[in-house]
Amino acid sequence: MAFTPTARTTSLRSPEKLRYDRELAYSILDAALICHVGYQFDDGPRVLPTAYCRIDDTLYIHGSTGSRAFLSGRDGIDVCVTVTIHDGIVFSRSWFHHSVNYRCVMAHGRAEPVTDPEERLRALAGLVDALAPGRSGDSRPPTAKELAQTAVLALPLTEVSVKVRTGGPNEDPADTGLPYWAGELPLPVVAGRPVPDEFCTEPAPSYLMR
Amino acid sequence: MAFTPTARTTSLRSPEKLRYDRELAYSILDAALICHVGYQFDDGPRVLPTAYCRIDDTLYIHGSTGSRAFLSGRDGIDVCVTVTIHDGIVFSRSWFHHSVNYRCVMAHGRAEPVTDPEERLRALAGLVDALAPGRSGDSRPPTAKELAQTAVLALPLTEVSVKVRTGGPNEDPADTGLPYWAGELPLPVVAGRPVPDEFCTEPAPSYLMR
Repeated sequence: MAFTPTARTTSLRSPEKLRYDRELAYSILDAALICHVGYQFDDGPRVLPTAYCRIDDTLYIHGSTGSRAFLSGRDGIDVCVTVTIHDGIVFSRSWFHHSVNYRCVMAHGRAEPVTDPEERLRALAGLVDALAPGRSGDSRPPTAKELAQTAVLALPLTEVSVKVRTGGPNEDPADTGLPYWAGELPLPVVAGRPVPDEFCTEPAPSYLMR
Repeated sequence: MAFTPTARTTSLRSPEKLRYDRELAYSILDAALICHVGYQFDDGPRVLPTAYCRIDDTLYIHGSTGSRAFLSGRDGIDVCVTVTIHDGIVFSRSWFHHSVNYRCVMAHGRAEPVTDPEERLRALAGLVDALAPGRSGDSRPPTAKELAQTAVLALPLTEVSVKVRTGGPNEDPADTGLPYWAGELPLPVVAGRPVPDEFCTEPAPSYLMR
């Protein structure tokens, strides 16, 4: 089911650019590695990059219980979580129409600390599996002490918009004959060769070979 | 000269992770493609991905004068601008020590509309050159109408912190013998082959071949 647009997820200027397709939003959330979490602190706004995972209709982030930031998980907090993947640079014949191809999900709402032990453990496994599918089954689960140091926050994915730009430049017809190269420079993220640490005697697992 | 730490650019938990080296900050700002701009709106925080450029000690972003957001440039606004490059995924033998290698710059301050025509033009050229060095000289400058549609905002780079994580996992000594692969998976962004648009008769310029 699509997301219902709200005042926060609509745009005055280019409403047609915003989309509310849940599958599209989740495919972007599941493809990206980090999100940027925005919230208002006493002395101004903050934008914090952090890992995250999506499980069903919830986005989870985690932090340290010793942290000053909202990531301490002591209270709920209003956030805007933005996930952006840039796919390429768009070169136009005019300065004005230069652009970036990207996929972006913006989610608004209240992130609340997760206290249920089972949900916490599920979220922490999800955070590890977001780095590589199945990795939580191929590494050591947290000890009681590690769990006590870890705050988990949950943001319900209800107020969400998606913006996607693809393709070449939107040239003004008058510009198409100008003697400048125009088009797209793709910028894919390509996984490199896994680098084992100094204690490693295992071969690199298949889930790293993507 | 290094940035002077402030309450907003220091951390309670891991102060040693934060750095204030201006050259390091600028090298990250000059290497990344987009920033995430956070600000408080009437109805909650916002985090907006957008292109940017740095010229000397100022970060510039632009928007549409028809926009509802602060990007309309009608007023100054308090922002936190975060630029993050993720360089790899860190796989630990424990869930707890999984991590991401990244370079992050966080800048706080008041973004103010730029009204001086020369500074506006310099910033707009900088925004194009941030996509590919020298591109502003190889494309059409803005018309008066395009200039009127474009808002430019300047954030002085004075209150800035840098955080960089590199290398493999920080394993607990007790975990180093566990039978799991551990190390880093590099995630470089690699420029692909330029894709010309349908009007293009020029060869791809050398500044795209990086």
